[in-house]
Amino acid sequence: MKSVKIGLVGCGNVGTGVVNCLDSNRTLIDARCGMELEISVIAVRDIEKRRDACVNTDLLTTDIEMVLNHPDVDVVVELIGGCTTARSVVTKALENGKPVVTANKALLAYHGSELFALAAKQNSDIYYEAAVGGGIPIIKALREGLAPNHINRVYGILNGTCNYILTRMEHGNIDFDCALREAAEHGYAEADPSLDIDGGDTAHKTSILASLAYGEWLGMDAVFVEGIRDLALEDIRNAREQGYRIKLLGIIKHETNSIQVRVHPTLIPVSSMLAKVDDVYNAVWVSGDILGESMYYGPGAGANATASAVLADLIDVALNLKFESAHRVAAFRRHALYNTVIAMDEIRCRYYIRMAIDDRPNALATVAHIIGDAGISIASVVQKESESNSIPLIMTTHLAREADVRAALAQIRSQDIVRTAPVLLRMEDI
Amino acid sequence: MKSVKIGLVGCGNVGTGVVNCLDSNRTLIDARCGMELEISVIAVRDIEKRRDACVNTDLLTTDIEMVLNHPDVDVVVELIGGCTTARSVVTKALENGKPVVTANKALLAYHGSELFALAAKQNSDIYYEAAVGGGIPIIKALREGLAPNHINRVYGILNGTCNYILTRMEHGNIDFDCALREAAEHGYAEADPSLDIDGGDTAHKTSILASLAYGEWLGMDAVFVEGIRDLALEDIRNAREQGYRIKLLGIIKHETNSIQVRVHPTLIPVSSMLAKVDDVYNAVWVSGDILGESMYYGPGAGANATASAVLADLIDVALNLKFESAHRVAAFRRHALYNTVIAMDEIRCRYYIRMAIDDRPNALATVAHIIGDAGISIASVVQKESESNSIPLIMTTHLAREADVRAALAQIRSQDIVRTAPVLLRMEDI
Repeated sequence: MKSVKIGLVGCGNVGTGVVNCLDSNRTLIDARCGMELEISVIAVRDIEKRRDACVNTDLLTTDIEMVLNHPDVDVVVELIGGCTTARSVVTKALENGKPVVTANKALLAYHGSELFALAAKQNSDIYYEAAVGGGIPIIKALREGLAPNHINRVYGILNGTCNYILTRMEHGNIDFDCALREAAEHGYAEADPSLDIDGGDTAHKTSILASLAYGEWLGMDAVFVEGIRDLALEDIRNAREQGYRIKLLGIIKHETNSIQVRVHPTLIPVSSMLAKVDDVYNAVWVSGDILGESMYYGPGAGANATASAVLADLIDVALNLKFESAHRVAAFRRHALYNTVIAMDEIRCRYYIRMAIDDRPNALATVAHIIGDAGISIASVVQKESESNSIPLIMTTHLAREADVRAALAQIRSQDIVRTAPVLLRMEDI
Repeated sequence: MKSVKIGLVGCGNVGTGVVNCLDSNRTLIDARCGMELEISVIAVRDIEKRRDACVNTDLLTTDIEMVLNHPDVDVVVELIGGCTTARSVVTKALENGKPVVTANKALLAYHGSELFALAAKQNSDIYYEAAVGGGIPIIKALREGLAPNHINRVYGILNGTCNYILTRMEHGNIDFDCALREAAEHGYAEADPSLDIDGGDTAHKTSILASLAYGEWLGMDAVFVEGIRDLALEDIRNAREQGYRIKLLGIIKHETNSIQVRVHPTLIPVSSMLAKVDDVYNAVWVSGDILGESMYYGPGAGANATASAVLADLIDVALNLKFESAHRVAAFRRHALYNTVIAMDEIRCRYYIRMAIDDRPNALATVAHIIGDAGISIASVVQKESESNSIPLIMTTHLAREADVRAALAQIRSQDIVRTAPVLLRMEDI
């Protein structure tokens, strides 16, 4: 085999990027992999839609089945997104003996287990570098480069939209709604931004990374998710004053016989490498037991960056076809070396708590008592002077159990000295 | 084949790390690659030497030839370093049909061309992830993850010793000799630190990265090298005042029909991700034409970090043996898509120039005239007040040609107003 024929399903932003980049870098790609990559057919919803000049309209069809059954298609690239049609596209391609490249994080997070089992049964490949971290080769790093390591911790900034919003809130001193509007103006936020700002997209990606790290396809039920929609500028400012920045992190940890998988806004030290990741950039910080700390940084989205990952996967598939080495690096390899995911109530981390209390004797003492009685040790307290009767109170704790903290806050909330309900954020000392 | 038998040649720091980490993570590694990795023989210089308890003394031999000819050795790991014995070890292993894993950057920089040709002829593998960036999977990222990209630029902090020294000089406000002593005390500097501080080690690694980026094994002649031995604390301070930090960088660029490969202390903006890489950490910043900017960060040295890379390579070799897919990703793939390396005289970059001149009329004008007449445009000038007759003068230039700058400095040096010979450093706007 000297050339590999590609069937594209979907030709939106990323699909056009793949066509474009393959077109411009064809000579280099052929030289590097010793094979020719060639797009032979492209399934789209609307043939008449205006497209980039690089897309050869002769290759367009609305008939997905035709692509999946085409004798001249060696590999199917699924770029339509979502979990319905995409799921059947990937399933049928594998059933037809065609390896698959996909950028679809939601599909893998929800249905990875079933799709990987099918790929194994068919002795075929699913590659999905573009599903996490855009163009950053983090899946390859985790599956291959770091393969000898037990992964102790992963902290990922995995959603460019959220990271842009958080960067703008802090640097521009603007509130969430204003930063979201700016993101939309720059084309960084969708018309319905929920999947980004409520943490769903980050959770899909975190679930995939956690599954690769721990050899058990975890799905979405394992992931605790809290987005940034309700994040107040005030908390970003307070964090900064205490030497922290707030990032939406995917957090994966292995600790004493259990694993944790969670997504939430997190205070991290300003001095950490991850705190310097701004705007739409993504980064994944990984600690391996023998490697130590490493970080992978790059553009988390964008047509060309994502196309870079899709094309790298296509090279891997092409080489597997050439060398008849399908499944050489399994799409996912299950093993049972780790224990199950711990309930969110049972995690222990440090916490940031903000509330407003009445300016009257014993108000602070009441709060401090409730926290102390719950066995939670306070690391810092800032009570600022206020001209009103409502006094802002900012506390950070030492390591504490989530359930204990939540119980203490529920009790505080019921006190008549409390003016605004306590805000709770988690901290990580990276 | 269910198990892969490893012959280690060399069992010093890194070799012991490999034995140790394979020992502790055996179950995980076997699960991830579906094969058992097993060390069957270890060639050392001195069998009697005291070793870590993990090293099974029954496996030791002083007979390297025995390892290379052993019917039970499927892959040879070369960890003795240097270019003499190591070269013959790698050559004979390949001639005997055994793939090789090595961490030897000097060997590859000087003899890569010949060794890769032999590997190709024998249809065998050389893997060398540990040769660059310690445990960071940067070779895999460049050869596979970023394969669809023309590499526009690479900036690498590739020597932990130098980065530690530079970090300590800046943060500790101490001079080079003092920082070097600290490095030695921490075990970060060899008894003879020349290979590190004069830039040789960084140059070996830079040559390897450049060769992978540009498809031509460049060797060492292509690399311009300047180390940090003569770097003055004063220049680190001046740089900092102007918003820059000084790092020893390996620089690889593709510009208008030519490539550049150079190693020298470099002023980079404090705000760049690379400027935040401190202590013994390494990082490689890569700009690809479709991916955009990415960075790979981690421990550049240390027994376990390096062992992580060696073991990842061993997994790749094991999979190639299992799937009979040797040379699936060629150790090095030659192509002729780029032009040759530009002479250092012809590069254009920005420059930092420091000198001391006489405190008398027209001294600054004389200097400025010479620079201007050479067609060099000055970006900034700082002339500080001084109590002596010798006035420190710090200038930065806009983009200028190296030969022009050198000629201007030679002319300045010959003026009687010059008290100390000009210091010349290069800048990069990352």
